[in-house]
Amino acid sequence: MKNIKEKALWSGRFSSSPAEVMQQFSQSLDMDWHFYSQDILGSKAHAKMLHHINLIDANELEQLLQGLAEIEMEILEGKLVPKVSLEDVHMNIEARLIEKLGPLGAKIHTGRSRNDQVATDYRLFMKAAIESIMNKLIKFMEVLTNKASDNINVIIPGFTHLQHAQPISLGHYWMAYFWKFERDLKRFQNAYETTNVNPLGAGALAGSTLPLDRDFTRVELGFDSTTENSLDTVSDRDYLLEFLFAASTFMLNTSRLSEDLIIWCTSEFDFIQPPDSFCTGSSMMPNKKNPDALELTRGKTSGVLSSLLDLMVNIKGLPLTYNRDLQEDKRPVFHAIETVNIVLEVLTPLIAGVKPKEEKIAPHLKKGFLLATDVAEYLVLKGIPFRETHEIVGNLVQYCIGENKGFEDLSMAEWKNSNSIFEEDILDILSVEAAVDRRNTYGGTSRKEVERQIEKGRLLIEKTLV
Amino acid sequence: MKNIKEKALWSGRFSSSPAEVMQQFSQSLDMDWHFYSQDILGSKAHAKMLHHINLIDANELEQLLQGLAEIEMEILEGKLVPKVSLEDVHMNIEARLIEKLGPLGAKIHTGRSRNDQVATDYRLFMKAAIESIMNKLIKFMEVLTNKASDNINVIIPGFTHLQHAQPISLGHYWMAYFWKFERDLKRFQNAYETTNVNPLGAGALAGSTLPLDRDFTRVELGFDSTTENSLDTVSDRDYLLEFLFAASTFMLNTSRLSEDLIIWCTSEFDFIQPPDSFCTGSSMMPNKKNPDALELTRGKTSGVLSSLLDLMVNIKGLPLTYNRDLQEDKRPVFHAIETVNIVLEVLTPLIAGVKPKEEKIAPHLKKGFLLATDVAEYLVLKGIPFRETHEIVGNLVQYCIGENKGFEDLSMAEWKNSNSIFEEDILDILSVEAAVDRRNTYGGTSRKEVERQIEKGRLLIEKTLV
Amino acid sequence: MKNIKEKALWSGRFSSSPAEVMQQFSQSLDMDWHFYSQDILGSKAHAKMLHHINLIDANELEQLLQGLAEIEMEILEGKLVPKVSLEDVHMNIEARLIEKLGPLGAKIHTGRSRNDQVATDYRLFMKAAIESIMNKLIKFMEVLTNKASDNINVIIPGFTHLQHAQPISLGHYWMAYFWKFERDLKRFQNAYETTNVNPLGAGALAGSTLPLDRDFTRVELGFDSTTENSLDTVSDRDYLLEFLFAASTFMLNTSRLSEDLIIWCTSEFDFIQPPDSFCTGSSMMPNKKNPDALELTRGKTSGVLSSLLDLMVNIKGLPLTYNRDLQEDKRPVFHAIETVNIVLEVLTPLIAGVKPKEEKIAPHLKKGFLLATDVAEYLVLKGIPFRETHEIVGNLVQYCIGENKGFEDLSMAEWKNSNSIFEEDILDILSVEAAVDRRNTYGGTSRKEVERQIEKGRLLIEKTLV
Amino acid sequence: MKNIKEKALWSGRFSSSPAEVMQQFSQSLDMDWHFYSQDILGSKAHAKMLHHINLIDANELEQLLQGLAEIEMEILEGKLVPKVSLEDVHMNIEARLIEKLGPLGAKIHTGRSRNDQVATDYRLFMKAAIESIMNKLIKFMEVLTNKASDNINVIIPGFTHLQHAQPISLGHYWMAYFWKFERDLKRFQNAYETTNVNPLGAGALAGSTLPLDRDFTRVELGFDSTTENSLDTVSDRDYLLEFLFAASTFMLNTSRLSEDLIIWCTSEFDFIQPPDSFCTGSSMMPNKKNPDALELTRGKTSGVLSSLLDLMVNIKGLPLTYNRDLQEDKRPVFHAIETVNIVLEVLTPLIAGVKPKEEKIAPHLKKGFLLATDVAEYLVLKGIPFRETHEIVGNLVQYCIGENKGFEDLSMAEWKNSNSIFEEDILDILSVEAAVDRRNTYGGTSRKEVERQIEKGRLLIEKTLV
Repeated sequence: MKNIKEKALWSGRFSSSPAEVMQQFSQSLDMDWHFYSQDILGSKAHAKMLHHINLIDANELEQLLQGLAEIEMEILEGKLVPKVSLEDVHMNIEARLIEKLGPLGAKIHTGRSRNDQVATDYRLFMKAAIESIMNKLIKFMEVLTNKASDNINVIIPGFTHLQHAQPISLGHYWMAYFWKFERDLKRFQNAYETTNVNPLGAGALAGSTLPLDRDFTRVELGFDSTTENSLDTVSDRDYLLEFLFAASTFMLNTSRLSEDLIIWCTSEFDFIQPPDSFCTGSSMMPNKKNPDALELTRGKTSGVLSSLLDLMVNIKGLPLTYNRDLQEDKRPVFHAIETVNIVLEVLTPLIAGVKPKEEKIAPHLKKGFLLATDVAEYLVLKGIPFRETHEIVGNLVQYCIGENKGFEDLSMAEWKNSNSIFEEDILDILSVEAAVDRRNTYGGTSRKEVERQIEKGRLLIEKTLV
Repeated sequence: MKNIKEKALWSGRFSSSPAEVMQQFSQSLDMDWHFYSQDILGSKAHAKMLHHINLIDANELEQLLQGLAEIEMEILEGKLVPKVSLEDVHMNIEARLIEKLGPLGAKIHTGRSRNDQVATDYRLFMKAAIESIMNKLIKFMEVLTNKASDNINVIIPGFTHLQHAQPISLGHYWMAYFWKFERDLKRFQNAYETTNVNPLGAGALAGSTLPLDRDFTRVELGFDSTTENSLDTVSDRDYLLEFLFAASTFMLNTSRLSEDLIIWCTSEFDFIQPPDSFCTGSSMMPNKKNPDALELTRGKTSGVLSSLLDLMVNIKGLPLTYNRDLQEDKRPVFHAIETVNIVLEVLTPLIAGVKPKEEKIAPHLKKGFLLATDVAEYLVLKGIPFRETHEIVGNLVQYCIGENKGFEDLSMAEWKNSNSIFEEDILDILSVEAAVDRRNTYGGTSRKEVERQIEKGRLLIEKTLV
Repeated sequence: MKNIKEKALWSGRFSSSPAEVMQQFSQSLDMDWHFYSQDILGSKAHAKMLHHINLIDANELEQLLQGLAEIEMEILEGKLVPKVSLEDVHMNIEARLIEKLGPLGAKIHTGRSRNDQVATDYRLFMKAAIESIMNKLIKFMEVLTNKASDNINVIIPGFTHLQHAQPISLGHYWMAYFWKFERDLKRFQNAYETTNVNPLGAGALAGSTLPLDRDFTRVELGFDSTTENSLDTVSDRDYLLEFLFAASTFMLNTSRLSEDLIIWCTSEFDFIQPPDSFCTGSSMMPNKKNPDALELTRGKTSGVLSSLLDLMVNIKGLPLTYNRDLQEDKRPVFHAIETVNIVLEVLTPLIAGVKPKEEKIAPHLKKGFLLATDVAEYLVLKGIPFRETHEIVGNLVQYCIGENKGFEDLSMAEWKNSNSIFEEDILDILSVEAAVDRRNTYGGTSRKEVERQIEKGRLLIEKTLV
Repeated sequence: MKNIKEKALWSGRFSSSPAEVMQQFSQSLDMDWHFYSQDILGSKAHAKMLHHINLIDANELEQLLQGLAEIEMEILEGKLVPKVSLEDVHMNIEARLIEKLGPLGAKIHTGRSRNDQVATDYRLFMKAAIESIMNKLIKFMEVLTNKASDNINVIIPGFTHLQHAQPISLGHYWMAYFWKFERDLKRFQNAYETTNVNPLGAGALAGSTLPLDRDFTRVELGFDSTTENSLDTVSDRDYLLEFLFAASTFMLNTSRLSEDLIIWCTSEFDFIQPPDSFCTGSSMMPNKKNPDALELTRGKTSGVLSSLLDLMVNIKGLPLTYNRDLQEDKRPVFHAIETVNIVLEVLTPLIAGVKPKEEKIAPHLKKGFLLATDVAEYLVLKGIPFRETHEIVGNLVQYCIGENKGFEDLSMAEWKNSNSIFEEDILDILSVEAAVDRRNTYGGTSRKEVERQIEKGRLLIEKTLV
């Protein structure tokens, strides 16, 4: 039992020790050391269960719990520095326990394999990580509702194909993202539920010959249920895939939001003022104020998408059950966790600080014939089939472009010339505010509808927080 | 209104018509023609709603419904062949309606845009597609429970790192996949729920100035709820991403199953006999009987993963709301639907027909020291700490390899020589059947536990089918 | 020999025939039928070689060549319709040959396997496909040089972070893409060279026991060299990966070009007028003129990237040599070929037809302090270290924003107030034309440098075309 | 100038400083600090050029070179610890230079932007990285030739579909990988050439108003040529994509090699003995000796593929020229470099140490009817058309399976019964050694041909090393 720190715990049947480069290649400590507190938590629960089924006595249990608690403290205080020669977090903690308690320390691994142990650590870790992300996401969604409320009266051009389409309330725009992120929230929730299942007791792959009580550790560790099949348990990584998928759709949504705002920050659009504290300048060009935080958000999207792909491709075609390939399941997930967190930490104050520049937006509302649909629908209400009105207004737009005019510049004669059915009341149509409020269908951009959305969104947040 | 079939419906403001290559480039008919029945269904519901809110009268409604019904029949009978010059399914059907009914036909597009129309078609289409896949998947899962039941007494080596680890019941193996696919089923269910929301009435992007009743069409079309925000509605594709994700994890699971079975079909393993009807031969080598269906399943996995990636990358960084990029959202989804369906159609009878070759498996059970853990746990029960027993048995394995012996070939003297604590009762340990049944923890490989899983699985199937 | 069309050619050792769904699953005809002319070409070369090494006589050769020529004609005339029951292009053509020539037809497969046969077909097909793409790409690059020449005097803001940075010549912009596409051209060339190697004669995997003359078929088929190792030959697909990579970087470049032009087409930028023939309108909004061709180009990028990924993921972890997974190597490649071709066919006339709107660009040149670097470098030439000048000008920009002024609106007193070193000659700096020409470093935006680039680019095109 | 270390160098026009989280979000120091020696090298070359064009005098040059040399030493000695508040490697080094030299230090950035500076650093860094990988790869290829030479007389089953196909020389197998890696070598070479172009002097995006001599720095820094267009230069990242592509195909090849060897290490195959020093054991199962290094290699493949995807997706749709998204171009590339290096360091000794277990392989050579093609070709030489022989032998194989016999177990009567044309000389066919040597076509598995390949491979290595 001496010397356990110096040689691999599985070295019994080996005639030569690992090549030096192999040790570096096969270690996972740089990644799984993140799990140290989960690993200790899992070991404590396992120890209690071993006592519960009479495989260790009360005194032994107390010593093990005490030893594990001390190790956690040593780690927190930086006294226990993990050794790469001990491969991973599990071996480092266990070796220290054996160093402390002698043969008793070695009992902690009774009925357990690193295969179910790492699954336990990882699921506990992910539950905390997803929960934390969900809390930040809800706060971000709250900022969006506040922003929507603040900007409900700001009218901007709505775009399709990045061309002016119809006028919308900026509040409506912020709420569009609210609902997108609300779906991401559900996906994180789904991932959480898939994760929340106790793998401990699956053993290396086939369960244990010892009478382990898996429900005992389930309760102890706070899992909702217990995995049904040991082979599935040690080979399964789809709780990680679900998280990575939710992280990917979240990043896709932030990439779209960023793209919009980056475009709105150009000199040409100039729709918004981002907070200085989230922009940077140029080392060469003193004029530059770049929307870096938004660009970085968009730029970090590919890293999260690739993380999802990474784990998927890793898993593709792997035979059951555990294969060492799966050790590579941490880097992509940790990267995604880190990215989603910081993006939320950045976007939340950034969006809170964005200011619309109404005076700059105003002239743009006159461009692009934003009210063309309204003019067409005016004709529909006068009884002309929609498809005909579309053609009438299309021709009118082309006439205006030729004359370098907007609708508001047309004389009544020009209206009549286009189609005799136009009357003076067409002028009532030509207000963007009225146009916004006319779109009062459920989910439309009218201010009444935006208010309904905000209220519903706030209720949803409240409900989720409780 | 004449000639509507010959020119694009939006040509009013254009001075020249599309380049020929542009027509080919921008058409989506080859893909969206799949939606024709959903498109007609959506138009019927829209027409009924227009009548409901008094924008068309009862007689007009009747004519429209009649016209749409006729068009559906014409398509089914191959009489209406869509024209690429009309771009897409919507324009083809509408043009035919106008041809039939004149100006009345043009009224169908009142208060509707292709942006919400295609979203309606696509969601209806996906609901049916996902439902059909779920039904096939449940049948496949049923086959797995039957197979598990049939093969519960077949013992095979359980693998980690593709090395012999511990003996398992083949029934346990099939149930491992049952639970994997059960999670896929949940993911398809999640995708279904995300899809099941009515987008009709969102208009081009901002809702409508007409008093459309979106709840009326929701009920008419069988959606669960209605989208909350029109900008979100026309820009959102994540219901498709959720489907593609579920399809991807499903394919990953089939790729792993295929990998296992391909390896088991080798001359060296020879664990199973796949049905001839799912193998093919070689044009050159008369000896070959290749597990092609399994290889193709594994090979088709990358196509589905790439489909998910395709749509994700497409969406990344797109400004709101609709951009023409999104037209490319069909090819990857259709490919995934087709692949998942045929893989299920192939794997279901294939797995049902797989026969384990017990006589060929038997000698392998003696290889690889499958019972090493059991020997170690024998020592644990004699009071030796697990970590020590691991080393004792590791040394014994190395001794056996040197002597070219299995555990069952060892004399009592050799056992004693390894460690004096070994007694005659060690021989009772050396049965794979007993070893399997000893692993009786919840989710373990014991036959009792496998039976529990099968029963639970069957209940779950029953519940889902109802 | 009878009935060869009705049963699979490898059915000798099978006791039951393929399941119906298996036939549909395993057929590759829908894809590989594209290879029919390459397959016939390869068979002719193989027949000639068999004669050359005296395995068939002159009369047999003549019959085979005649038969193959007839089959090609039958296919062209639509008389020979391939049967899915015969699995693939190879079997369809061979079966027809046997039908025509009896036992002699069956000799064509002597010393050949479908494994080396399909590799031959595919490499021949790819050589033609890549060559055709390269020719189109060169024509596109020529359009870029012409456009650069036409627009050399058009000054636009140069962007970093989508913010105004420094003024540039629009000719410089077009040439930037010229050089990007020139690198794509090299990558297509690399892919071509990797493809241009004769695989015929590698057999199923190990070569042939017959004295095949692989150099004879190499010359006959126009390959540059012959593959060195038969196992490598039938398992290798990286010539396809190289093509897909070149296609991907090409699409990435087109996606960036599209993004720029889409942004330039907005009402807010309004820098360019795309040709009407490559835009489309909206079914609902008569005002819309959307840059669809550019959006579709950007949108089709993900499909090509995913194609590369698809084949990579397929190949990952495949054991040697041929596995049926590789049958799935066609869909992604064909999709990429089709996409790259049509994108080139669309972008070439589109870019040729783009017109800059100088009068609309002009006011934007006054925004964004485009000449800030020039002002800073003015100070550098007066002896102030660059880093200090950067700060001085940065403060001046902030002052201007506060006063709502551009540099050209500043009085001399305000200049002096910023820094006493400013003299009257600062006014000479404030011309965007002069600013462009001042950037005369190699590869800079000065018109002299742009002309140099154009000339070099044209020489390069000429050289490549010869 | 005081305080330069405490505030961002572009802060002149900003009214508030970056949010704390923004600093963490936008810093790139954790990645680009890897470039410190390239950054110093680039600054030295830039300084020399500034002197060459008389923008600084000889004394100033000397001070700058001295200061930069000191800084390099300070970094090596750990005395200069970079500050995140200074954002990146460039600012850290420049700030230290200014600290040392005062205003003179600030002159180093004259005519330079971080946009061309980072491109210079990155290209220099990549040249060294690719060169180092190529050297390791060549050494690995040398090991493959040695292994091929050592194992030329070892006969193994050749596989297609993981089924026995035809016997091959193990030397032939190793050489198959030699040629695969030789193509990877070419791709690394291509990436190197694309990288080897001087970007310095492109400025922020448009070149410089100062008379910079870009050919001077090209020579100084050892680049082959100079970039042609400044906009292209600062927006281009495809030299990185080419590297990532080469890294990806390399990893794909190692994943396939790993898959083969992992399968060969199973108890069932047992074809090879991997060196103990590259295997590890199990914490639970004392019997396990797992081919971990091979599994990890296969498992690390997805990370490199995803890195390629990451950068591609990042770049997709980015407008010209530099966008902050591109800061994310380092993580994937560094990960790929690290992975490729360690995989080469592991696989080279691992493959060198692999030992075939001929006695274990021998019985497998009797399985799977490996010589079926040879028997068929025996009949071809007796004048039977190949397609017929295929059917005769197929039936014979099915007969043997029914009788549980191999070809070598058949009596002459049974041969005759299959087809009367079989004579006693069929027995000469039934030797795997002879079968291997009969496949003597160019690139075939005959030992003569394998020797030819080895010789050619060795010449190629020699040529590349010179």
